[in-house]
Amino acid sequence: MPIVSAENLRRFISEVFVARGMAPANAQVMADSLVWANLRGVDSHGVVRLQRYLEMIDEGLMNVVPAIRIETRAESALSIHADKAPGAVAMRLAADHLLKPAQTQGVAMALVSAMTHTGALGYYTSRLAEAGLASIAMSASVPLMPYHGAAIASLGTNPLSLAVPVGDESRPLVLDMASSVVSLGKLIQARRNGTSLEPGWFVDADGNPTTDAARAKMPLPFAGAKGSGLSLMIECFTSVLSGYSILSEALQQHSEPSPHRQSGMIIAIHVPTFIDLKSFYMEVQRLSKLIKTLPRVRGVDCLLLPGERGYLCMTERQVNGIPLPSSVCDELNSIGTKLNVVGL
Amino acid sequence: MPIVSAENLRRFISEVFVARGMAPANAQVMADSLVWANLRGVDSHGVVRLQRYLEMIDEGLMNVVPAIRIETRAESALSIHADKAPGAVAMRLAADHLLKPAQTQGVAMALVSAMTHTGALGYYTSRLAEAGLASIAMSASVPLMPYHGAAIASLGTNPLSLAVPVGDESRPLVLDMASSVVSLGKLIQARRNGTSLEPGWFVDADGNPTTDAARAKMPLPFAGAKGSGLSLMIECFTSVLSGYSILSEALQQHSEPSPHRQSGMIIAIHVPTFIDLKSFYMEVQRLSKLIKTLPRVRGVDCLLLPGERGYLCMTERQVNGIPLPSSVCDELNSIGTKLNVVGL
Repeated sequence: MPIVSAENLRRFISEVFVARGMAPANAQVMADSLVWANLRGVDSHGVVRLQRYLEMIDEGLMNVVPAIRIETRAESALSIHADKAPGAVAMRLAADHLLKPAQTQGVAMALVSAMTHTGALGYYTSRLAEAGLASIAMSASVPLMPYHGAAIASLGTNPLSLAVPVGDESRPLVLDMASSVVSLGKLIQARRNGTSLEPGWFVDADGNPTTDAARAKMPLPFAGAKGSGLSLMIECFTSVLSGYSILSEALQQHSEPSPHRQSGMIIAIHVPTFIDLKSFYMEVQRLSKLIKTLPRVRGVDCLLLPGERGYLCMTERQVNGIPLPSSVCDELNSIGTKLNVVGL
Repeated sequence: MPIVSAENLRRFISEVFVARGMAPANAQVMADSLVWANLRGVDSHGVVRLQRYLEMIDEGLMNVVPAIRIETRAESALSIHADKAPGAVAMRLAADHLLKPAQTQGVAMALVSAMTHTGALGYYTSRLAEAGLASIAMSASVPLMPYHGAAIASLGTNPLSLAVPVGDESRPLVLDMASSVVSLGKLIQARRNGTSLEPGWFVDADGNPTTDAARAKMPLPFAGAKGSGLSLMIECFTSVLSGYSILSEALQQHSEPSPHRQSGMIIAIHVPTFIDLKSFYMEVQRLSKLIKTLPRVRGVDCLLLPGERGYLCMTERQVNGIPLPSSVCDELNSIGTKLNVVGL
């Protein structure tokens, strides 16, 4: 597999978006967020998305020069209309705009509506953790999985992320979980490798359980009613609260909402409002150590903290580079050629 | 099974706590929260707890005359030291104190430390929904389930609750989910009925999977690393953030923390800060209807919204009364006799 350095990959992605008319600062955000996902081993949310993002620009679904409206609705509350900006641009803007109100008010919240593809949610909560803030984020999208007991796709795999800083800015505790039991990536992988799926992961087009990757269509919500309920609540806390319902529009189909329109929400918490930052770091580190050294069940080599797998991958890939499948590498280079951007 | 009216049960519980020295207003909160759980069909969190609560008072674990300290740390941030107050008293106080700052600041947050048994978390988010607010709540307790891959109890079954108002104050959308795949109640039930447990629900004392109710000891986190990570993050967002670590103390065992000390956190969101309340209600109702009328998989009679099962049970029990097992009824009446409180 070709190996590409994070730096080179960032340079390339940024230049591609600039070539497509995006402001350099926003193009850098796009590059940083996509390459972050690759560094963390979440390749499904990384540069493999570039081709589709460019198509979305062509189709008018993603706006390279969005007129983002940031409204301060109250001392601790922001409402951001993204005007089809890529999620990375809109959500990072939201995270950055929360720093000040969180600091003065203790807690602050931003809603983001009408953005295009949120990207890896952990990117935004990790960013806030780097700045010393605890945060909760969620995002909502179009239906991909069935509501618990339903036969058709009726919920997004809406993720929830929680992160806290630990004093080492590169390795916060960060949970980033979809409300589906596994991601669609597992299905793509099983199809590619000709393997079976585990029971309870997927259902077919009629909502019947299947382990056959060829017949599987929709991932199931985790823990049945729990993942299902969480996904629905996230739609209420993001899309409905910001006045841009995604799910109702998609289920009712009387209008034609953008299939890629997404909503998000971030709550940032200023740790020193509640506890001295150093004490907080010490306690989270003590807890982390205690968890890491727990006795393990047979067959388990190592207990991983939330976000640790991604951190370990990032540490390795920052040194050794990011492996990209040849097909992805070729696709990126062909995009580069068309746009007069120096390839990888 | 004896049937008791909610009113009579509230009267009884309240009088018992007053007889034990609690202020009448707090005793009424205790009665309201316990009977709420019974009305909603969550009998495990209802009046069955009374005997243990009274023991906890005797053992100095629960304080009937707590000196609760409410500190305003910032415009949107409260920190509440509960001084071993029962969770119902401390968490309801937190919810009520969030109304005003949420209204003026858009969002507000309260941490609650050093309380004794949180009770049903949905009680507090439902209460905020009744007042027209959206909310997120979480609470942390001592280890009951293994961290993903660990062989010993190392995490609380820490619940997360999200609720939004829908315009009918008695039936908000309210999700209240433990981070375990099922509650300990399922184990108690299986033992009582002599039935097996479902695979993936419980492990034995050594952390090995079992469906044998006699050998089962700990519930597993839902979806493995997801429930496990969520529980750990909740400990960080509640106990650690408030400076009263529960998990580290329990795992380190170099001090002797109260086995019943719990922490909680509530974030209240003022809906009209973001969207006109009527529009919000209309949209949540539209979404609810669309979910309810989705095509169902074979064998499913009805799709339930988050909190709907509890609402339906409450509607029925408010009219027909609350069925209490004879053993529970006898236990309560014997408590009443000892304290000169008129029985049920």
